[in-house]
Formats: sequence, C-alpha cells, structure tokens
Amino acid sequence: MAPAIPRLFLISNSTMHGGQYLQHCAAELGAFLGRGRRVAFVPYALADHGAYEAKAQPAFGALGCELVSVHRGDPLAAVGAADAVFVGGGNTFRLLDALQRTGLAAAIAARVQAGMPYVGSSAGTNVATLSIRTTNDMPIVQPMTFAALGLVPFQINPHYLDPDPNSKHMGETREQRLREFHEEHGTPVLGLREGCWLVVEGGRATLRGSTNARLFRRGMEPVECAPGADLSFLLAR
Amino acid sequence: MAPAIPRLFLISNSTMHGGQYLQHCAAELGAFLGRGRRVAFVPYALADHGAYEAKAQPAFGALGCELVSVHRGDPLAAVGAADAVFVGGGNTFRLLDALQRTGLAAAIAARVQAGMPYVGSSAGTNVATLSIRTTNDMPIVQPMTFAALGLVPFQINPHYLDPDPNSKHMGETREQRLREFHEEHGTPVLGLREGCWLVVEGGRATLRGSTNARLFRRGMEPVECAPGADLSFLLAR
Repeated sequence: MAPAIPRLFLISNSTMHGGQYLQHCAAELGAFLGRGRRVAFVPYALADHGAYEAKAQPAFGALGCELVSVHRGDPLAAVGAADAVFVGGGNTFRLLDALQRTGLAAAIAARVQAGMPYVGSSAGTNVATLSIRTTNDMPIVQPMTFAALGLVPFQINPHYLDPDPNSKHMGETREQRLREFHEEHGTPVLGLREGCWLVVEGGRATLRGSTNARLFRRGMEPVECAPGADLSFLLAR
Repeated sequence: MAPAIPRLFLISNSTMHGGQYLQHCAAELGAFLGRGRRVAFVPYALADHGAYEAKAQPAFGALGCELVSVHRGDPLAAVGAADAVFVGGGNTFRLLDALQRTGLAAAIAARVQAGMPYVGSSAGTNVATLSIRTTNDMPIVQPMTFAALGLVPFQINPHYLDPDPNSKHMGETREQRLREFHEEHGTPVLGLREGCWLVVEGGRATLRGSTNARLFRRGMEPVECAPGADLSFLLAR
C-alpha cells in the first residue's frame, strides 16, 4: 500500500500563455494549502532571488498565505519554521545544485516525509521526483548528483510538448528524448502538459487541471491520462 | 596568436529536413578529410552502435573514406590507428559519459592536439567544446564531469533555434536558456543553426554552410554571423 504521506502539489508550469502567475491552479492550490500558512519559498532556480520572491508573494498572499524566500536568512531554519514549502521554476540544474549545497534537499525531504505540504512548479516539480534526468533545461551548472528529493518514485517531465507535425527542425522531439531515457532506465515518466498538475495526498495521486498528461513506460506504448485520472499506481515503490 | 592546430569540422546537424545523412556538408567534408582516410567512428551517443555505424558508413564511403566504429574492438587502439575521428550525434550526456569511461576523451583530445582531424555532429560537436553545458539534450545519464574535450575555448549550441512568435508554449526559448548560461559563466556560445558548421584549420575558424550562426556573449547583444564569417577571434585562449 502507498504511504499516506507525503502531500504534494506538482505543477507543470507556473503561468499559462496570457495568464497570471499560478492563476490557472490558484483555487485548488488554496484549498490544498489552507489559509494562514507560512510558506517557505525556494527561489534558487532563477538568478535574482529578490525579484522572484516579489513575483511569487502576491499569488500566495491572495490565497491568505505568507510567502518568505529562504534566501533572506538561514535557509534551513526557514524551512524548519514553515508550514509548507514552494519550490519555484527556472533552471533545474541550478536549483538542484543549490538544494544540495545548502543542505535543503535533505531538510525539505525530511519535513515533507513528516507531513509538510510541498508545492513545486516546473523545475520545482522536477526536483521532487527521483532525479532530474527528465528535465528540459540546459545543464548550466553541475550538481553533485542528478538524484533529487525522491518524494515520488517516478519521473516527471514538465511542460510536456507534443511534436509539431509542420516542423522542419531536426532536433529530437520530447517523445524521442523520453524514449532515450528509457533506453537507460526503467522508471516511468509522467509528461505533464502545460495546464495540468499532479496532487498527491492520502496515499493517492490524482491528475488535475485542464490538459491531459502522457505516461511513458519502458517497452509500452505511451498512455494519455485525462484530468481526474487516478495515478496512485505510480506511487508503489 | 591562435595555435595552428587542431583541425576541426563541427556540424550543427547531421541531416537536413528531407535530406540524406551528412548530404548538406558532404562536398566540404570530403575536401576537409581527403580521400583514402581511415575514420574511427564514435557511436556512443545512440544506443544501437551497430545500426549507427551502418548508417554512417555509406556517407563516408562516398567520400572515399573507410569508417569503422570503435565499439567493434579496443576503442583506444582504434583511435590510435585512425587517420581521423568522427563523433556522431545523439544524446550528449550518454556520449560524454562513454568518452570518459572508456578513456577516449583524453585519447581523442591528445591525438587531435597532435593534428588528427576531428569531425563532430550535434552531440559530437558539443563534446568538442569546453563543456556540455550548452547542449539541448536530456540528462539521461550522469557523466563524471560536464567538462568536455576542450578542443576550442568556447561553447557551441547545435540545432540553434529561433523563438517561434506564434507559440503559446511557456517553456524557455533557446535564447533564454543561453542567457541563463551567461548568468553563471562568461564563456561565449556560438549558436549553430541547422545547415551551418564551423571549420577550424590553420589557426582560423570559419563559419560554413547555408544558414547564419548567432553568437552570444555575456553582457552583449547577440550577433548574427553569415556563412564565410571569420570567427578566429573565438580561438584566443
């Protein structure tokens, strides 16, 4: 049986085209967190931590939560004192490197395994999984290891993108890249299209939002998963 | 002054949309190599080494060269006995990991610094540069280090792609990714659009092919470089 914890809210993309930051998932995110929570914000995926905090604060303020970035003081103490954590998107390699160097990777994983809600978006969703091996980002920084927080026992590919049938570009499609991943590893990969997110709570994993996810498993045809789909079978370790 | 060696032929993409393998650069590649050369092929960027060798052989055969993949025997001995090396494209992380584990990274670099011609395509072009930090590929395998062969003292981004003004996808554009690279590093990055390649010989670096490259330097506006452009200034260490 899957464990009753952790509680995770793993978003593909923070912002829909033409929309506001976290607008598309705000109602469900508010219900997931509850009001009055102190949320520790991890800004390390972007270079300008202060500007990133200023961008994220109004979205959480509108949910009745107080968001403070961990770069303002002792990051470990900030996570220790918070009711929830939000790990923002940007460059996944830079983010994981900072999480490893600060000790936050282990500290956040320990608190989440003890029940603290985790919210991740894009790179923040990548680092919640087993490893960053299915990120779309450029490896601008080398982390100690590609192993990530391991809050779920599978991989996620955020911003999952279908092939463009009219493209003449010869770079690999996303599906080709994920097939290459499965040439090396047997771990399932959930491709979260922009507009959907995965909620894990009470030992269940449920797809939410307005778009399908696409599930890739080694040696199997990819499968489409509609919003509302029960993906709890992916939690089995 | 830039050194008179190495001799490099660094291709953005092996195949143009609707074209044959290496067809778009075959005439110049033939002139670069000369006829009758034994070419050691490095197939490690793809999973099926034999199939990859079978795909590459006719293209080199048409140039009057004999191509044999290094996976058929002792890779170090194969490189030692060859007149030239061709490193094929695929997944850059898988390729660099294999080059490091086999000792080929150091062996190829030593021979190229001593004058052996190096031909790379896509991932094979990435690994010729200072590091793989500007690859487009998914990090499916973790190499010991992102440092690559360092045959040129700058970075290349193969398959360079302009932003699509009609896209509603919120993933980073290539230019945004390279700007993130320059938030962390000062090394110039040459974005090779599909259809162009860089030739280094006689201490000069020249852009060739049918498309522009785009040069990214920290703190400067990107610059377009047309086929024929002299980029030798990038060779200064």
